[in-house]
Amino acid sequence: MNPKNLAKAVVDRLLEADACSTALGLEVLDLDSRYAVVRMTVRGDMVNGHGVCHGGMIFTLADTCSAFACNSENESSLLSSAQIELFRPAMLGDELTATAKAVNQGKRKGVYDVSVLNQDDLLVAVFRGQSQRLGEALIEQ
Amino acid sequence: MNPKNLAKAVVDRLLEADACSTALGLEVLDLDSRYAVVRMTVRGDMVNGHGVCHGGMIFTLADTCSAFACNSENESSLLSSAQIELFRPAMLGDELTATAKAVNQGKRKGVYDVSVLNQDDLLVAVFRGQSQRLGEALIEQ
Amino acid sequence: MNPKNLAKAVVDRLLEADACSTALGLEVLDLDSRYAVVRMTVRGDMVNGHGVCHGGMIFTLADTCSAFACNSENESSLLSSAQIELFRPAMLGDELTATAKAVNQGKRKGVYDVSVLNQDDLLVAVFRGQSQRLGEALIEQ
Amino acid sequence: MNPKNLAKAVVDRLLEADACSTALGLEVLDLDSRYAVVRMTVRGDMVNGHGVCHGGMIFTLADTCSAFACNSENESSLLSSAQIELFRPAMLGDELTATAKAVNQGKRKGVYDVSVLNQDDLLVAVFRGQSQRLGEALIEQ
Repeated sequence: MNPKNLAKAVVDRLLEADACSTALGLEVLDLDSRYAVVRMTVRGDMVNGHGVCHGGMIFTLADTCSAFACNSENESSLLSSAQIELFRPAMLGDELTATAKAVNQGKRKGVYDVSVLNQDDLLVAVFRGQSQRLGEALIEQ
Repeated sequence: MNPKNLAKAVVDRLLEADACSTALGLEVLDLDSRYAVVRMTVRGDMVNGHGVCHGGMIFTLADTCSAFACNSENESSLLSSAQIELFRPAMLGDELTATAKAVNQGKRKGVYDVSVLNQDDLLVAVFRGQSQRLGEALIEQ
Repeated sequence: MNPKNLAKAVVDRLLEADACSTALGLEVLDLDSRYAVVRMTVRGDMVNGHGVCHGGMIFTLADTCSAFACNSENESSLLSSAQIELFRPAMLGDELTATAKAVNQGKRKGVYDVSVLNQDDLLVAVFRGQSQRLGEALIEQ
Repeated sequence: MNPKNLAKAVVDRLLEADACSTALGLEVLDLDSRYAVVRMTVRGDMVNGHGVCHGGMIFTLADTCSAFACNSENESSLLSSAQIELFRPAMLGDELTATAKAVNQGKRKGVYDVSVLNQDDLLVAVFRGQSQRLGEALIEQ
């Protein structure tokens, strides 16, 4: 398999069991080695007490996107920590697009950056996640 | 109103409009000035592709708990950034208890620490959030 | 003054009083609006107990570089928090080049990313800093 | 050796080669298993362009303190990432005391929290560092 097809096969496997991503309506737009693009539309059950999308939902979008990127080489990985910066609110109905890329991938530890843009290409948030490879494959090759 | 009752009145106001917290089944256990305790039970729609609770759901619990703590003095505040460390997985059915306390609250910027424990009092995650006060009250006093 | 000259004039002013940067031998390579490039050579008094450059010295380089970038528009700013990832050690004699760029600059809060490369263009560290504008100018225009 | 004496022996070994800590005048006040207290006096060559102690020097103090704590069990460890929050400036002549404690220490990864207080017991900064154990001892036992 080439890197792009491998990334797709891995994320298909992850999504099979991922009730959470399904519940949030996450849509995979693009995948490649150490790279992922995922979209989420802000629904009524994602807005918080200030009338805007809950930061936790934006985090979940970015976290999922970075998980796809860091598992893309068929090395099972878990996010062990992450940092998020929220720049502008996302409102009901907004379409948020997260793009994850590797900053650095070592033998075990990886660092992935995610940007989250809205439908007007304005920067809603940036996310940096630290992943640990578990030494296992996700799919048979 | 004393600080504890003020915190309760503020969080009641936040929860009225908080479809997201309601959707996640968050339960407020205790509140005080710059302090909050919130519980979440891990449901089937919160588990991810690795069979464990999605990090984004643990983040959302901690984020909500810190929002309650940083708004507790009736100063409307928003989380502008946050960092999370995940130590052990939370499994389907686990009861997670988040406790938020102020590390420092300045005139505008606050820093709040949240710990997340499971039903066996094991540390699942720690969270640190940075809040900005908006210069508005949430409820009339 | 054009943005580039303004950035230079501001950093000259900062450096006049900056005994710390002078003591570390920091060298400014380029400046522009919300942008700075600074070099540091790893000296004998910067190495730690593991025989490599102390993480604190790499942090100081990145922190100073981001301070130049976030003050570059003649808006006096302070770093209120920062996060650093260290990928590979820097050794005695290495030449480290830090490049700072704005991720987002709001009315008050800014977020700046810094990359630190060694003389072989290998990534030594990434740094993200949060700055607060104080509402004062640094130099008269 | 009991845990306290082991911690002391390990830090003595680290300090032997630590030109950087020596250059900064760091003073070890207390040590134990996963615990360290270190003091630094703010000198003239530590102040920055705003007339206050450079954030990088406060980071270096906290980073060193956490390094002592995470190496204290004679498991050679390196800080791979860290986050710092700066709450109030430290001025020339201030005596800063850093205290590091483990939040969580796994088989390989550890998370350590450091608080930095000034001589009036006011909170200057908090620091959180992530360490990786290398699988080697620092001293023979």
